[in-house]
Amino acid sequence: MHPPSHGDDRELLARAALMRAADVGDVIMGRLVRLYGSAATVEMIFRGILPEDFVEKEIARRGDPEHAAALDRRLRAWQARLQAAAPATDLEAGHEAGARLVIPGAAEWPTQLDALGHSRPLGLWVHGSADLRYSCLRSVAMVGARSATAYGVHVAAEFGIGLSEANWTIVSGGAYGIDGAAHRGALAGPAPTIAVLACGTDVCYPSAHHDLFAAIRRQGAVVSECPPGVHPTRARFLIRNRLIAALSRGTLVVEAAVRSGALNTATHAANLGRHLAAVPGPITSEMSLGCHKLLRERNAVCVTSPAEMIELVGMIGDDLAPTPRGPVVPRDTLNDETRSVLDAVPSRGGAGPASIAVAAGVDLKTALSCLGGLAAAGYIERVPKGWRLRRGHPN
Amino acid sequence: MHPPSHGDDRELLARAALMRAADVGDVIMGRLVRLYGSAATVEMIFRGILPEDFVEKEIARRGDPEHAAALDRRLRAWQARLQAAAPATDLEAGHEAGARLVIPGAAEWPTQLDALGHSRPLGLWVHGSADLRYSCLRSVAMVGARSATAYGVHVAAEFGIGLSEANWTIVSGGAYGIDGAAHRGALAGPAPTIAVLACGTDVCYPSAHHDLFAAIRRQGAVVSECPPGVHPTRARFLIRNRLIAALSRGTLVVEAAVRSGALNTATHAANLGRHLAAVPGPITSEMSLGCHKLLRERNAVCVTSPAEMIELVGMIGDDLAPTPRGPVVPRDTLNDETRSVLDAVPSRGGAGPASIAVAAGVDLKTALSCLGGLAAAGYIERVPKGWRLRRGHPN
Repeated sequence: MHPPSHGDDRELLARAALMRAADVGDVIMGRLVRLYGSAATVEMIFRGILPEDFVEKEIARRGDPEHAAALDRRLRAWQARLQAAAPATDLEAGHEAGARLVIPGAAEWPTQLDALGHSRPLGLWVHGSADLRYSCLRSVAMVGARSATAYGVHVAAEFGIGLSEANWTIVSGGAYGIDGAAHRGALAGPAPTIAVLACGTDVCYPSAHHDLFAAIRRQGAVVSECPPGVHPTRARFLIRNRLIAALSRGTLVVEAAVRSGALNTATHAANLGRHLAAVPGPITSEMSLGCHKLLRERNAVCVTSPAEMIELVGMIGDDLAPTPRGPVVPRDTLNDETRSVLDAVPSRGGAGPASIAVAAGVDLKTALSCLGGLAAAGYIERVPKGWRLRRGHPN
Repeated sequence: MHPPSHGDDRELLARAALMRAADVGDVIMGRLVRLYGSAATVEMIFRGILPEDFVEKEIARRGDPEHAAALDRRLRAWQARLQAAAPATDLEAGHEAGARLVIPGAAEWPTQLDALGHSRPLGLWVHGSADLRYSCLRSVAMVGARSATAYGVHVAAEFGIGLSEANWTIVSGGAYGIDGAAHRGALAGPAPTIAVLACGTDVCYPSAHHDLFAAIRRQGAVVSECPPGVHPTRARFLIRNRLIAALSRGTLVVEAAVRSGALNTATHAANLGRHLAAVPGPITSEMSLGCHKLLRERNAVCVTSPAEMIELVGMIGDDLAPTPRGPVVPRDTLNDETRSVLDAVPSRGGAGPASIAVAAGVDLKTALSCLGGLAAAGYIERVPKGWRLRRGHPN
C-alpha cells in the first residue's frame, strides 16, 4: 500500500531487527531508539556497548546503582536475539504472506500511538486491506470477557453492527467472547475492523478464529507489534492492550469479571485520557461486575446504545444520541377502544388497518382513528407492511 | 404511642379538619397554616375571608392580578369541604381502626419532612406498630416499576432483605412490582418497613396487598397524608412520591421504564438534595431504561448491592461497602491438578475433601493441598458441609 523508498528500506530493516531483539513494550529500547535512531541502536547492540550518558540517565531514572547490571543483562539479551534475527527474511516472508511493517513516520502510521511515549511500538505488522491510520481516525475499542454470556455476545454484536453502520471502526483483540462478537458485528456493517493480536499476524490464535481473521483481513486489518511467528503469552496480552486503547478514541467495556484483561485495557484508556465507557448489565451476572465497578469507581460513562457511544467519542454536537423516550401519553389514559387496537398491533413485521380492526374487534373507521392517535403518542410506527409497535415503547 | 394532651387535641382536630378541606400538597394551605396556625386558618375558612396581606402576597408571588379570583375559588372549595368535615369522627374512627394522626411538633413527627417547605403535609395518618420518626432515621426509599420483571422483583427483594438485616428501614409505596417486593424483602429481616399510600390508610389499594399491608402494620407502618376513606388518584400518586423521597436518606430506583412514577420520586429526591441511586440492568430490558437514564443524565450512583447503598446513605467511613474482588490468582495460572480440584468443588451446598479428591481424580493429600491454595486464592470457602465455590468467584 505504501511501497517504501530505499531510505525507508534501511529504516524498515533496522526496525524489524530491533523488534526481534526487544520484548514488546520495552521502554529502555524505546528511549534508546528515540534518542539515537534505529540504525545507530542496532550498531550499539551489535558492538555490545551503550552510550555512557544513556546508562547514567537510566540509572538516575531508577535511582539504583545496581541497575547497571540489569541494563547490561538486557543488552546481552538484545545482542543474542539480534544476532539470531533475519530482518530481511522477516520482511520478505511478511510481504509474501501479505503483511507489511508500518513504522513511525510512514504514511500509514497511526500517530495517536505517539501518546504511548517510550512504550510506543517500534513498528506494527499490518495484514489486511484497510489503511491502519485512516481506519483508526474514527474508531472505538470494544473489549470484554472471553467467557462472555449470551447477553454480552448479543450486545457486542449489536454495538459492532451499529457502530460500523455509522462508519466507526471497531478495534478489538480478536479473542473469544466479546472481542469476536464485536468484530463479527462490525463485519456485518460497511466499516473496517481492526484486530490487534498478542502474537505474530501469521499466528492464528485462537485457532478457531481462522475464518474470522481472514474476514477481518478482507474488511480491515490484523495488526501486531510481535514479529512473525511469535506466540502469545500472558505478558504479551497485557502489553497488547495498551495498543487497543491507544489506537481508538474511546474504549467500551461490554462485559468483564472483576479480574479481567478488559479492565487492564480500560486502565490504559483512562491513563491516555481517552473516553472510557461501560455497558451495564444484570447485577446478578458475574460478567457485568467489572463494568459496574468501572461505572462506580472509575467514572466510566454508562452506555446503552451505539448512538450513545458515538455521542461520547464523536465530535461535540455532531453526534448527539437520541434520548430514549417513551410514548407521550401513558397507556393508563388510553380509552378502551384505543387500548384494544394497540393490543392488536404486532411488534414485528407489520399489519394493515383492516386486519388490526378485525383483531381488535372494532370497525375500520375506529381502527384508523385509533392508529393515528397511537402513532402520534409514540406507541406505533408505520412500516411498509402497515403498522407495528415502535421499538422502545413500554408495554 | 404518644397520647395527645388536651392542647394537642385541639390542634389535632384543626389539622384533621384542614386535611379534609385541602387537597394533598396544597401549598397555599401550607403557607396559610405556617403563617397563622391551624386553628386561625380553620376560623378564616369558616368565615370565608383570607387576610388581605396574605392575598396580596399570593398575588405578588404569582405575578398575576387574576390570581385573586382563583384564590377565592380555592377558599370556597375549602369552605364547602370544611363544612362537610367531621374531624372528631375521623380521629375516633382512626383510633378504633388503630391509626393515629401524627402532626408537626409531635414526638413521632419525622422532621426531615420539613425540607418540603410549604408542601409539607399538614399531618400524617400512621397505622402500624413502628414509631415513624425513629424508623425513618435510618431509611432508604426503594421505588420502581409496577410491571417489574422477574429480575427487578428478585433484586428488590434481595435489597429489602439486605438493608433490613443491616437495620435500615425500607420506605416504599406499597404498589405491585418493585414496591411490594421491597416491602416483602424488608419484612424478612428485622427492621420496620414503611408503606406510604396515595389513599387513606384504611383503603386497601391494591386490594391484593391486603395481607402485605397487614404484615407491614405489624412490623412497620402504613402511612398517608390522605384522610380515612380517600381513594387514590393519579395526582395523589405523584404528590405522594415527594413523601417517599423526603422521609428517607436516599432513593434507590430498582427498575423503571422511561416514563415512570419512580423517576418522579427520583426527581423529588434530587431536588431535596437526598442521595439518588439506580440499579443497572440489561440494556435490552425496557424496565431498566429509566435506571440507565438516571445513571447517564441525572448523576445517580450505580448501586449493585445493599452494602453499596448503605455506603452511599450511611455515615461517611461508618458504612463502607466491600469492593467486589475476584480471586487473587487468575485461573490460567493454576496448575492442572489444582484446576481439576477447583472443577470438582460444588457451587452450592458443599463437599468434603475425600469426595472432591475422587471427583478430581487426585489423591487425598493432593486434594487437601490444592484446596488450601484455592481457599487462600479466594476461589473457594469452607462451609459446614466442607468446601464450596466462593460467591463472586469468576468461573
